[in-house]
Amino acid sequence: MSTVTTPSPAWLPDAALAPLGTGLVHLPDDGPLTDTLRGEVEHATAVHGGRLTDRPETADLLLLTRRTAGAVAARVEAVRYALDADRRPGELVTARPRPGRWVTARRSGVTVVVGDDPAALLHGAFALLRRPLLDGDVVGEAPAHPVRMLDHWDNIGAHPVMGRVERGYAGDSLFFDDDGVRADLSRVERYARLLASTGINAVAINNVNVHAREARLLTDDLPDVARVAEVLRRWGIRTHLSVGFAAPVTLGGLPTADPLDPDVAAWWAATTARVYDAVPDFGGYLVKADSEGQPGPFGYGRDHADGANVLARALAPHGGTVHWRAFVYDHRQDWRDRSTDRARAAHDHFAPLDGRFEPNVVLQVKHGPMDFQVREPVSPVIAAMPRTALAVELQVTQEYTGQQRHVCYLGPAWSQVLRFAFDDAGDSVATRATGGLAAVSNAGTSPFWTGHPLAQANLYAFGRLACEPSVDPDRLLEEWVHLTFPKAAPDVRASVHRLMACSWQVYESYTAPLGVGFMVRPGHHYGPDVDGYEYTPWGTYHFADRDGIGVDRTMATGTGYTGQYPEPWRSRYESLDACPDELLLFFHHVPYGHRLSSGTTVVQHVYDTHFAGVEAVEQMVGEWAALRGRLEEDVHAEVTERLAEQLRSAREWRDQLCTYFWRHSGIPDEHGRRIHP
Amino acid sequence: MSTVTTPSPAWLPDAALAPLGTGLVHLPDDGPLTDTLRGEVEHATAVHGGRLTDRPETADLLLLTRRTAGAVAARVEAVRYALDADRRPGELVTARPRPGRWVTARRSGVTVVVGDDPAALLHGAFALLRRPLLDGDVVGEAPAHPVRMLDHWDNIGAHPVMGRVERGYAGDSLFFDDDGVRADLSRVERYARLLASTGINAVAINNVNVHAREARLLTDDLPDVARVAEVLRRWGIRTHLSVGFAAPVTLGGLPTADPLDPDVAAWWAATTARVYDAVPDFGGYLVKADSEGQPGPFGYGRDHADGANVLARALAPHGGTVHWRAFVYDHRQDWRDRSTDRARAAHDHFAPLDGRFEPNVVLQVKHGPMDFQVREPVSPVIAAMPRTALAVELQVTQEYTGQQRHVCYLGPAWSQVLRFAFDDAGDSVATRATGGLAAVSNAGTSPFWTGHPLAQANLYAFGRLACEPSVDPDRLLEEWVHLTFPKAAPDVRASVHRLMACSWQVYESYTAPLGVGFMVRPGHHYGPDVDGYEYTPWGTYHFADRDGIGVDRTMATGTGYTGQYPEPWRSRYESLDACPDELLLFFHHVPYGHRLSSGTTVVQHVYDTHFAGVEAVEQMVGEWAALRGRLEEDVHAEVTERLAEQLRSAREWRDQLCTYFWRHSGIPDEHGRRIHP
Repeated sequence: MSTVTTPSPAWLPDAALAPLGTGLVHLPDDGPLTDTLRGEVEHATAVHGGRLTDRPETADLLLLTRRTAGAVAARVEAVRYALDADRRPGELVTARPRPGRWVTARRSGVTVVVGDDPAALLHGAFALLRRPLLDGDVVGEAPAHPVRMLDHWDNIGAHPVMGRVERGYAGDSLFFDDDGVRADLSRVERYARLLASTGINAVAINNVNVHAREARLLTDDLPDVARVAEVLRRWGIRTHLSVGFAAPVTLGGLPTADPLDPDVAAWWAATTARVYDAVPDFGGYLVKADSEGQPGPFGYGRDHADGANVLARALAPHGGTVHWRAFVYDHRQDWRDRSTDRARAAHDHFAPLDGRFEPNVVLQVKHGPMDFQVREPVSPVIAAMPRTALAVELQVTQEYTGQQRHVCYLGPAWSQVLRFAFDDAGDSVATRATGGLAAVSNAGTSPFWTGHPLAQANLYAFGRLACEPSVDPDRLLEEWVHLTFPKAAPDVRASVHRLMACSWQVYESYTAPLGVGFMVRPGHHYGPDVDGYEYTPWGTYHFADRDGIGVDRTMATGTGYTGQYPEPWRSRYESLDACPDELLLFFHHVPYGHRLSSGTTVVQHVYDTHFAGVEAVEQMVGEWAALRGRLEEDVHAEVTERLAEQLRSAREWRDQLCTYFWRHSGIPDEHGRRIHP
Repeated sequence: MSTVTTPSPAWLPDAALAPLGTGLVHLPDDGPLTDTLRGEVEHATAVHGGRLTDRPETADLLLLTRRTAGAVAARVEAVRYALDADRRPGELVTARPRPGRWVTARRSGVTVVVGDDPAALLHGAFALLRRPLLDGDVVGEAPAHPVRMLDHWDNIGAHPVMGRVERGYAGDSLFFDDDGVRADLSRVERYARLLASTGINAVAINNVNVHAREARLLTDDLPDVARVAEVLRRWGIRTHLSVGFAAPVTLGGLPTADPLDPDVAAWWAATTARVYDAVPDFGGYLVKADSEGQPGPFGYGRDHADGANVLARALAPHGGTVHWRAFVYDHRQDWRDRSTDRARAAHDHFAPLDGRFEPNVVLQVKHGPMDFQVREPVSPVIAAMPRTALAVELQVTQEYTGQQRHVCYLGPAWSQVLRFAFDDAGDSVATRATGGLAAVSNAGTSPFWTGHPLAQANLYAFGRLACEPSVDPDRLLEEWVHLTFPKAAPDVRASVHRLMACSWQVYESYTAPLGVGFMVRPGHHYGPDVDGYEYTPWGTYHFADRDGIGVDRTMATGTGYTGQYPEPWRSRYESLDACPDELLLFFHHVPYGHRLSSGTTVVQHVYDTHFAGVEAVEQMVGEWAALRGRLEEDVHAEVTERLAEQLRSAREWRDQLCTYFWRHSGIPDEHGRRIHP
């Protein structure tokens, strides 16, 4: 049908494939996933001069599963070394035995990857690219959780303003065009390869806001969904669908979607069976219910455990999972109503349901209590439901973080969330996320996949963190830079790394300060509008007046949200003195002259960070300009253009924020910089 | 094609036609317009029991032109009386002889209308409906200006948010559907009848923002434009088209649209000649140039006289007119730039061009310097261009005045503009509007034509004011109520009148105060958002801070806009003391505690008017509720629903405005009413 321009190779350019392609490679397994891997090796060897070999003892690289490794072990020392690694104390094999695990070893110049299963072998082979082993090293790796999921907010019908991808900033949908699933899925194949190389193994292909046309993916369009699943399957990725809770009514013609109605349960069971007829390894359903206008169990006087469980029971016989979003709040709030606090909503709704969900329900919780702001506390729901499988949802698409026009490497933000410790005994977000990680994808048909070429790093980092939540985000950035620009000189790579490493903090510095959030233009969410949400029904207010700003969420005098946290955070957030500066305005309403623990006042902090933020962007622009001619020209040109917009926008943020705070506080800048009146 | 539901008869229900239909009617003229009138009389007599007669001496009502009146005068005393009226001192015939004039008289129970031409006779016959004569009265009437124009902002392609009619709040376009001009123009015929009954005689059928599809109305679609013109012509209305200044390029394939290029002039001449081949009485072009993204002469280094004149020369041989809009300003202003003042723009651009326009150019000037806010000073352009034909543009569609969800009878607002005296010698806006009045229509395919049934009064009042700028708007309202609800009891009509009479002042009282304007939600312009435009590129700011609010447009310390007015207004607006309260914040930036000439402070004025405004709407709701069962049920139900929304919205305005002013000023309400924190 359409001609697909070859998109950027992203972090898998041919030059990066050298570790797979320079020598003699032994790959004795068979089966679909191994065929995929064999294709990779064949491509890599064609480029780099190596070749496949049937003779293990001559191989420089052996790619094996446990099934095939035994036979080879007798003939190759490196394989024995790898297989024995578990039994030797002090080796680097720290990952507990888990599905998806692989071990890598090098011995006398021979490299071995042994996967516990074919998918693990595929992932282990890709891992070689980013982490060439030193002589003698043995490394075991396994994904922290069996499901690492990307959610696409893609539609078939295009929204008049947003286009086909809700909150998409990277061109059109990879999966759909006007007619439904694209006829040509070659770009999906390339995308699946990129995802598989980071460890992603589940993709929900359609938007959680399920409109009428997209609802039919579950029924009429199953043959097309099967075509997508066939492509993704080759890369070890299972296909999931977002479904509407009212589907029994809208698709099934039933008079109700009441989850306790036997006809409804039967409809879901029969419908789901048909899905599995078409897609035997179908992953399951993703559901946004009773949220922002979507139908849900509340409409039938049922709770969300009832709602999720009816779907779970339909999926269970087939091995499928319900990802049920906890993003439920009143989006028609009255700004005059100071007793309602949107931040409380998920905990209020879901914590009482702990223990009531079927085992194959994963409650998908946004990392913060609001909506993917540049800075939020972690959601207290994550600590509150020990008897429920929880997935933490991140947002790779940069809805509130510059919309892929600003450089904003989110690895450090996500890592901070995952490492957040509820107590000193190691009870962290990562350990609580027993359902794994999920995220909204930032990819589309743009030539660089993600609009901004440097936004690829977020897609990469998410997949890697979903496998290894404790990995240093700075190392992930290094991996991504190394893979993406393999031919660039070390100083060029260092420059790209430097430019991106703190870009999240830079973005925060010139946008909404101190955790206050939502100072964006309503609707499209790009650019500053300090009061834009102040009188709206969305529950996102800062309550600035001539004296101060911030939301009092304390138990003592505010909405009581702090009480949703376990100790010590409950007390820490409750206390004006102990509350971390970066979240001060999320938890407290304070005078502009309030002194932060950093020693400066709130208003002076706003001035200082906003001027500093723009200066940092100016430096980024300069640093990037110096790379001209030393990187791929198209990447350089694209980033240059976007950096110019970032600088314009950062100045706009700085000037609006400074003017706003000056107009409200009447307090001038201590350093006498120019603030517009 | 489509089935058109019969729309409301608006102010021409059968019951209102009694003055034309109860007796024997003599109508001896012939010709197309008289055929139209004869149809009206035939319909009226069929309903009311009268009939047409060939014998003038037996007639109760004689409808004559000067051409036919002479022959009848000898046989009917009332006709002699009417024809002699001009020569008798002290009669009510005050209108100077002008095209379109008619005289009405009653004598011994016989009523006579004598029109100077067939259109005048049609208008005079409709005038009978609204003003049944007392015995012995003689009235002469003539429109103040030969052109009374309505502009439709209708498109063929539908905008994803606004639909087919830009700033339309009354359903779909009367003229267009997806395919172009509608196949079924029966609703246009009904619309033309309504317009003709008020004196409108010119309609621009398409949006001044001319997009690619609509541009072709000028060329490919001429046969369809001719079909519209044929319908409108029957009611004495000429058809006009909005055209894009770049048409020679976009339609003609020329390399330039430079107005001084001979090929461009030739293209306009040839194109215009073809328009007149299709529509011999074509009215002319309406042009929005160099405004909000539309192309214009600035793009070729020419001024707006050059631009308008090239079109005027093409139209002149055919008797057509260019309506050239003076709405030219920088819509990409930087809010940080305090030296640019959008209010100045039209005067800065156009005043220097006075005397340079061709005689058939009408410069169409919005009544205020900004954009149809609920309260603006009159545009200083109107006093500044004595050698240019100026049309004053009003906005019947309620973009900024409640979008036909709020009752807002605009007659008093328009009347205030038209009566505004530049000096004590009678130099008013009405006398300066030598090019007449034009307005943006509020009509569409809604069952009540205008969405809100009571918004019909604005359409009615505009047509009447375009003919008679000095008429009392309260009398126009009385006419409209009388015609629209002819069967209602007098107390019902009085109630409707009371509810509407001050509705503009009520709307002002709960929206943006003291002339400050633009506190609406950006984009759709409905509902409050005090800071919504504060940091945008649109040049519409109020500069509120913790100390005060308003725009300093003085010569002494501000933008100098006051200097664009002649004395005494220049000094009056310049002076903080002499400036009228209702425009204070348009001209001055003042502290919240500034005392108005009314005796109250600015902030207390905001509190008082906003609470009073909501109370007034509550009264309107109650008053309307009491009319249930005493008016047409569909009208009552529709208005009831819209009043509920108006009340909700008015409370929202009150609460946002009061909270905003309290948060900024810190000054509590003197009367201790509840203001949300």
